[in-house]
Order: sequence, then structure tokens, then C-alpha cells
Amino acid sequence: MTSPLDPALAARLKRNPDGLVCAVAQQRGTGEVLMVAWMDDEALHRTLTTRKATYFSRSRQSYWVKGETSGHTQHVHEVRLDCDGDTLLLVVDQVGAACHTGERTCFDADVLLRMED
Amino acid sequence: MTSPLDPALAARLKRNPDGLVCAVAQQRGTGEVLMVAWMDDEALHRTLTTRKATYFSRSRQSYWVKGETSGHTQHVHEVRLDCDGDTLLLVVDQVGAACHTGERTCFDADVLLRMED
Repeated sequence: MTSPLDPALAARLKRNPDGLVCAVAQQRGTGEVLMVAWMDDEALHRTLTTRKATYFSRSRQSYWVKGETSGHTQHVHEVRLDCDGDTLLLVVDQVGAACHTGERTCFDADVLLRMED
Repeated sequence: MTSPLDPALAARLKRNPDGLVCAVAQQRGTGEVLMVAWMDDEALHRTLTTRKATYFSRSRQSYWVKGETSGHTQHVHEVRLDCDGDTLLLVVDQVGAACHTGERTCFDADVLLRMED
């Protein structure tokens, strides 16, 4: 698929076999890691231009503007690409819960280890 | 491969076709997102039991104790599993640079968007 994404940027992306890169969403200010999802070139283009975090759903094989139905949108302040080009970091303002379960983040419910030392 | 990972935990993991889950490493205290890598059951087991972040290298097809050669280790304080079981969040104390380029995080060098509003 051709996307209007800047070709110089597109050339730096290292996509998985499904054409996707990983995207980590982090709350601005608090630094909370909210969720991890996936983007193709078009989703990244839409995210950069609309500043509404837009992912590609692997299960539904379609674009998904975060919060479009729930109202729990992510207003995007920063987007960064990692050193090997296969992961994005989005710094966002999350409205309400990031997780579809109603938790603030997708990592709130299941703690496998917690140690002070 | 059988791993000594707790079977009740192993049953909750939703692995990709390569048998891996995504792992986000975050600095304790500051909340910096340091890097994203991959784990299989054995890497997760080693991480939980040794508290040294241990990943599975897709390119080398081998286990990789973060900092084993560079000294830039990650001492693990928390491990959390996300709501759909395919991503881990590690809260760590990162010694030195997390990125192989010498940057503090893998997301420091390539800023695609930065907006105040």
C-alpha cells in the first residue's frame, strides 16, 4: 500500500512481516506507559498530521482512532522513532482510561513482580 | 520449548507467531521509556528469577542479558503484563546508557514530532 507518509521517514521504518511497527503510548508529564499497539505507514501519517493517535488493529485489519467510540482519545505531543526504526514512542495526553477494561493503563491489573530493593 | 516459567503465568501469555511477547523497559522514578525488546517464556522466567532483564534476540536467535557485555545492566523492580497478555512492562534501574548507540534511551535521537500545545 502506498501512503502519503514522508518518503524520507518511510525509508527509516523497519516494519515487521505484517508491515507494522510497534507504538508505545506514554502520558505526558507523569510518564505512565499507557498501552502498546501497532502502526503501519498510513496510521503513522494520520497520527502525525491529525495529532490523534491512530493505530492499525491486527485483529480487525483496520485503522483505529484511539477513543473514537469511547471518547478516551490521545492527543499527541511527541512522536519519536527508536534507534533501529521498528518502534515508536508517542507522548500523549490521555483522556480518561487508556485501557478498554476501564483501567487507566493496560498494565495496571496484572503485576507479576514488585520489589522495593 | 518447555520453560520452567510458572504454568499459570505461561497460560496468560499471548505470544506472536515467533513465540515472543513485547517488553517495554521503563526507568524507575523518572518514567523514561528506555527501550523495547522481546521475550519468550524462558527470557521472562530468567528475568523474574534473576531480576536482570533478559531478552530474546530475534536477529541472533539467542538470549541476551541486557548489559552483559556493555555493563549497562537493568535491575528489575517491577514486571507487569498488559490486558491482552502480549506485552510486558519492566520497571528497571538502568545503569548508564540503555541504547547501543550510547544514548540514554533508544528514543532520544530521532524526534518525528514535538509540539507544546
